[in-house]
Amino acid sequence: MELDRSPLALPFPEMPAIDGVTLRVARARYKDWDRCDLTFVELAEGSALAGVFTQSACASTEVEMGREQVKSGKARALIVNAGNSNAFTGHRGRETVEQIMSQVAEGLACAPDEVLVSSTGVIGVPLPKDRARAGVDAALKAGECSWEEAADAIGTTDTFAKGAHASAMIGETRVEIAGIIKGSGMIAPDMATMLGYVFTDADVAPSFLQELLEQANARTYSCITVDGDTSTSDTVLSFATAKAGNARIENWESPGADAFAAAFTDVHRQLAQLVVRDGEGATKFINVRVSGAVSDDSARRVGLSIANSPLVKTAIAGEDANWGRIVMAVGKAGEPADRDKLSIGFGGVWAARNGLPVDDYDEAPVSKHLKGDEIDIEVDLGMGGGRATVWTCDLTHGYISINADYRS
Amino acid sequence: MELDRSPLALPFPEMPAIDGVTLRVARARYKDWDRCDLTFVELAEGSALAGVFTQSACASTEVEMGREQVKSGKARALIVNAGNSNAFTGHRGRETVEQIMSQVAEGLACAPDEVLVSSTGVIGVPLPKDRARAGVDAALKAGECSWEEAADAIGTTDTFAKGAHASAMIGETRVEIAGIIKGSGMIAPDMATMLGYVFTDADVAPSFLQELLEQANARTYSCITVDGDTSTSDTVLSFATAKAGNARIENWESPGADAFAAAFTDVHRQLAQLVVRDGEGATKFINVRVSGAVSDDSARRVGLSIANSPLVKTAIAGEDANWGRIVMAVGKAGEPADRDKLSIGFGGVWAARNGLPVDDYDEAPVSKHLKGDEIDIEVDLGMGGGRATVWTCDLTHGYISINADYRS
Repeated sequence: MELDRSPLALPFPEMPAIDGVTLRVARARYKDWDRCDLTFVELAEGSALAGVFTQSACASTEVEMGREQVKSGKARALIVNAGNSNAFTGHRGRETVEQIMSQVAEGLACAPDEVLVSSTGVIGVPLPKDRARAGVDAALKAGECSWEEAADAIGTTDTFAKGAHASAMIGETRVEIAGIIKGSGMIAPDMATMLGYVFTDADVAPSFLQELLEQANARTYSCITVDGDTSTSDTVLSFATAKAGNARIENWESPGADAFAAAFTDVHRQLAQLVVRDGEGATKFINVRVSGAVSDDSARRVGLSIANSPLVKTAIAGEDANWGRIVMAVGKAGEPADRDKLSIGFGGVWAARNGLPVDDYDEAPVSKHLKGDEIDIEVDLGMGGGRATVWTCDLTHGYISINADYRS
Repeated sequence: MELDRSPLALPFPEMPAIDGVTLRVARARYKDWDRCDLTFVELAEGSALAGVFTQSACASTEVEMGREQVKSGKARALIVNAGNSNAFTGHRGRETVEQIMSQVAEGLACAPDEVLVSSTGVIGVPLPKDRARAGVDAALKAGECSWEEAADAIGTTDTFAKGAHASAMIGETRVEIAGIIKGSGMIAPDMATMLGYVFTDADVAPSFLQELLEQANARTYSCITVDGDTSTSDTVLSFATAKAGNARIENWESPGADAFAAAFTDVHRQLAQLVVRDGEGATKFINVRVSGAVSDDSARRVGLSIANSPLVKTAIAGEDANWGRIVMAVGKAGEPADRDKLSIGFGGVWAARNGLPVDDYDEAPVSKHLKGDEIDIEVDLGMGGGRATVWTCDLTHGYISINADYRS
């Protein structure tokens, strides 16, 4: 099935080169297709590594091994296989991952556990060793490629290539941050996976890079949802090559740490939002802004309850200011809330305040807002100072067509 | 919008009269329609009452008051308003409920707090006092009606009337249990609500009736889902008129307690399954059977994770034996699971055992099974002895049409 480009797609941006990062792609032919499906990223010696992974209790071998590898904080290479997730394949799948790690390590003269591997695609089929070997061999010899080519090669059911970048000043040194991501919102035929990779030439201590990544994850990837389904392979890795020559960022006290953290989080936020923009069947990008919660975390959970509600998502698809469905989603979130303090609005107009419909509520500007393709839902719980923003998309016939009409 | 009768609908059964229960319906015209929308059930003096209610933090006035009323364990009447849920209406909505309670209490010469009230329909609009008063007045004077007429009158977006019954022997005394329910799976335009009422002529102590209802709720209503959305008004009440003349059932040691509990739970299970059969857009009824969990409760949560997954529900709609999506849903449930002990099957055929695809897996009988309209998904976690069955329906274009194409 050929998928149409998402109506919410953004053009691929001009992305800066990152000193110490070399991109290559090759054809491993994990599926019967004629496209690059193996991505090889070579990293300068001394590069720092950080990673966050799916919470799934049925995670893939790649995730299990990745969780161990990030403890060392060091990486020399990344391999991404597209077309086969290698999940639920037991020891046979693990052998292929170990083969890839050894083969790349030999080519780069590094330790096998400095080679990170991700895979995405069909599950229950062990990644074929012969195709992986030939693909890695071709990738080791390939010429450099662009960010967009790499973003295309890691994609499966994605309808557009996704990249984002930012820069920050650390003292007098400008550092660059660039990343690519694939995913149609954790969802797709055969369970597409969210895989994201962010690279910087900054010199950042691995432990601080991990801290920043976990913080960014809580504010970005943990705040998006398409349908609430979570892949067995979700992975976000970050690499810092230390080529920019800045004074090393060791912790929050290091000069430039705040600026770097802001730019780094910004890249992750852009990437996270791009995944929502490629949500299956999406026609509207939805910002759910929750304030007045007892804590930021509580606000995020209320936001996700709204963003995951099929009734809310279908109402937005129907351009219907059905705030009753939002009351329902707040009520079922399991978080502290009080019906009589709850306010709900769309696009800056309150429909209900303090538990009652607004008497002179003017639906005309709300109807106009809902006809657009970027929707704001505002919820104030009136309980405290906690706030969060969650991003999602609407639920349409397109989602059903992609996931039910199509047969794997 | 006129909704088609669900393809999974069952005919309304022949239902026994329950001594001490008198059914009446009337037209309150809560909406601009010509149908009975106010149901009045009169209960014999001395009737026992039990109730379970939505967990929503934004519950309706009716739910808030009902929670208090069940503490007394006594009831003389039930009023159900259809077409207006009276939720999110503050003190104005509460005044109407109090008016209804007083009016019925006057008619029956009972205490106002022995009159239970439920409402379902549009939210944010206070239940109109004048219509409620005229409707109750008409109902107090109306002749008796049938179970099916009452089941129709409590419905809103339901596409068929739902009733169930069973009987049990307590010593030499036969007791009858009969119930009606409305709901399209907690979901519908303007947030349809699940409201269920079960009546028996047995003599059951209120505290034990409450215990039995809570147990039945855990095994029936808490095991169904259409889309994971929870109404602000969900209510299930049970009434025991004590007219059958059995020796009173006080607790589990009372003769006949087990038989009564089994029949009582059976009626609730039938009613719960009827709600799933009227799930919006449903074309297949799905049994999710989970075994090998660390506890029954853990099994139920894993089952609900599977049953709520849009990817699993769309796969079943597409008659696709996509067990990878079930691995995903098990993994995200947040319950103890081990990929390498997990087995998944359809209609009695294992597709994966102990974390690996079955080598000689024959998809032909599975494909045939998935073409039917009653689907079995079996999951064995291999962790312990906990088990549960959860019921749901598939997710189809019909769901999107009803909830997005229709504008409230």
